[in-house]
Amino acid sequence: MTDMLRAGSVIGILGGGQLGRMLAVAAARLGYRTHIFEPGANPPAADVAHAVTTAPYENLAALEAFARSVDVVTYEFENIPTSALDAIEAHRPIHPNRRALSISQDRLIEKSFLRDVGLKTAPYVAVDDAESLSQAIDEIGTPAILKTRRLGYDGKGQARLTSADEAGTALKAMAGAAAILEGFVEFSHEVSVIAARGLSGEVAAFDPGENVHEGGILRTTTVPARLSEAQRTDAVLLAGKILNALDYVGVMGVELFVTPKGLIVNEIAPRVHNSGHWTQNGCAIDQFEQHIRAIAGWPLGDGARHSDVVMENLIGDDIARIPEIARERHAALHLYGKAEARPGRKMGHVNRVTRSD
Amino acid sequence: MTDMLRAGSVIGILGGGQLGRMLAVAAARLGYRTHIFEPGANPPAADVAHAVTTAPYENLAALEAFARSVDVVTYEFENIPTSALDAIEAHRPIHPNRRALSISQDRLIEKSFLRDVGLKTAPYVAVDDAESLSQAIDEIGTPAILKTRRLGYDGKGQARLTSADEAGTALKAMAGAAAILEGFVEFSHEVSVIAARGLSGEVAAFDPGENVHEGGILRTTTVPARLSEAQRTDAVLLAGKILNALDYVGVMGVELFVTPKGLIVNEIAPRVHNSGHWTQNGCAIDQFEQHIRAIAGWPLGDGARHSDVVMENLIGDDIARIPEIARERHAALHLYGKAEARPGRKMGHVNRVTRSD
Repeated sequence: MTDMLRAGSVIGILGGGQLGRMLAVAAARLGYRTHIFEPGANPPAADVAHAVTTAPYENLAALEAFARSVDVVTYEFENIPTSALDAIEAHRPIHPNRRALSISQDRLIEKSFLRDVGLKTAPYVAVDDAESLSQAIDEIGTPAILKTRRLGYDGKGQARLTSADEAGTALKAMAGAAAILEGFVEFSHEVSVIAARGLSGEVAAFDPGENVHEGGILRTTTVPARLSEAQRTDAVLLAGKILNALDYVGVMGVELFVTPKGLIVNEIAPRVHNSGHWTQNGCAIDQFEQHIRAIAGWPLGDGARHSDVVMENLIGDDIARIPEIARERHAALHLYGKAEARPGRKMGHVNRVTRSD
Repeated sequence: MTDMLRAGSVIGILGGGQLGRMLAVAAARLGYRTHIFEPGANPPAADVAHAVTTAPYENLAALEAFARSVDVVTYEFENIPTSALDAIEAHRPIHPNRRALSISQDRLIEKSFLRDVGLKTAPYVAVDDAESLSQAIDEIGTPAILKTRRLGYDGKGQARLTSADEAGTALKAMAGAAAILEGFVEFSHEVSVIAARGLSGEVAAFDPGENVHEGGILRTTTVPARLSEAQRTDAVLLAGKILNALDYVGVMGVELFVTPKGLIVNEIAPRVHNSGHWTQNGCAIDQFEQHIRAIAGWPLGDGARHSDVVMENLIGDDIARIPEIARERHAALHLYGKAEARPGRKMGHVNRVTRSD
């Protein structure tokens, strides 16, 4: 039995975007305060946090002061500099742990870890220059996708190769960064599992959701996903395997390709995940509360779903549709308080409850 | 069609308790910021608000600065001094309006208003001194309840009279305040309707909940309440009548006694209400969001219930049961972040989802 973090404790969150914002609300609901560390001014999470530090991740003094002012630290995104983590970890625990972060920060290390624990991934080869790219294409064939090893999200830092002729252009798109060539996977659809592991080692998972992307950005998640019972069980067991192998604490998003040969892991995210937003209106305990429960030593929610949900991201100009969505029955809006609607910017999401039972 | 309050606008909330806290979270979810005005230091709402002013309601300069910094003002409790309202209303609109506030601040005016719009209340007589109390007892009989006209909540400022002999003791309990003697109503149970009216005049109501009090404090609300279809319709129509008569904007709690002779209005609260907390886990749009929608010119949620819920208040030492409740399936905890658990103090609540459909 693990001790529950004392009521009134402060949870430090690295990153002040919408994920940090929804984590802060969940923390408050469980009686905790939050302190946000974020380089940008007026981040979405600041509206609902007890305290905010505005400083770059290079400001180690600010990071240390932040760490000392909180009881435990978590994060809403995975690209945190190692030096920043060192500065914090000297004073306070970080959940999920450093190993989960380092694996998810690098596509090559991530794929190698996933293979090591016995899971399937797309074929891949490391690419550092024109020569290794040429060899990689020989080995994997085309179509294939060249991706930077680090700092990729929402389709950035990626180039698709339909033939070997495009190698030069693709390599240029990497801008000199170390890369990985991934073979193309023939899949019918993508699902993701939002799973959690608590401080005591307890594991729980929400029902898998089915994701549709547009332009590299998640557009909708539909729950339940189209999966056989066997696939559903596989998906959940596979997520548990990853969590246990990492001695993980917190919520993780695991993206999976559904193929005739089984489930193939696309990528993992060591944090609450956009494809888990449906849980806010489909479950008594959502992914944000689940994450706070995990890192605060609480028993986990069991992931039970009371309703079917279609989550739709509201991106850029989609916010012009809010007055119309506000009139829909069973549509729960979640807006992020961002001032400016830029193309591709996630401004909010709507959970449409399609069936309850 | 009313204009919706522009995204990023600031909603000012008078009072920083748990109701203000949950209103602040709902406002954030709709893309608004909140500014809390509260005399006490470190109020529960401060943890999730964008800004907080700590000042007494007598500090008119602070109230004016607060009003100027926000776009619209609302409140979480009804006992706000008139001078404070004057100072705010010179600069910004207040919803719900002054008339609703003045009515609910005084039991005598409240009862007279309810009778005027054709609703049933307990028999009552104004009591100012020993003589008028004696006459009131002659008229109403015993058992009866003597209550201060103003500033009563959670059973405070009340004295029960089982016979005329207790008049002296009861009057003493009023401490010289103007009072009202209410006749005892034979009721089988108490229900409440949480209803809302929008800026455009649209009215919506949640399903009535059945309330159980202990020691004058709400203990549980169960939804659905034990009501016939006709009673359910009556309850909702009656709430709509009150809202329309007041040209009301926002959420109102209407407490009703269920009697063989029909529904009798016990009291009204011009704000979100403890007996509406179940909506957080029973409806896509809860009472807090409904209130923000109303005062921000949004279309209202229709009040549809996706789940049956039993809400239990966690009072004082009840918080010792949190580790146990956290292990229950379908139990959603909502804690208020209060540091000290005093007897009778509301520390949080739990919504147990008992059935979904």
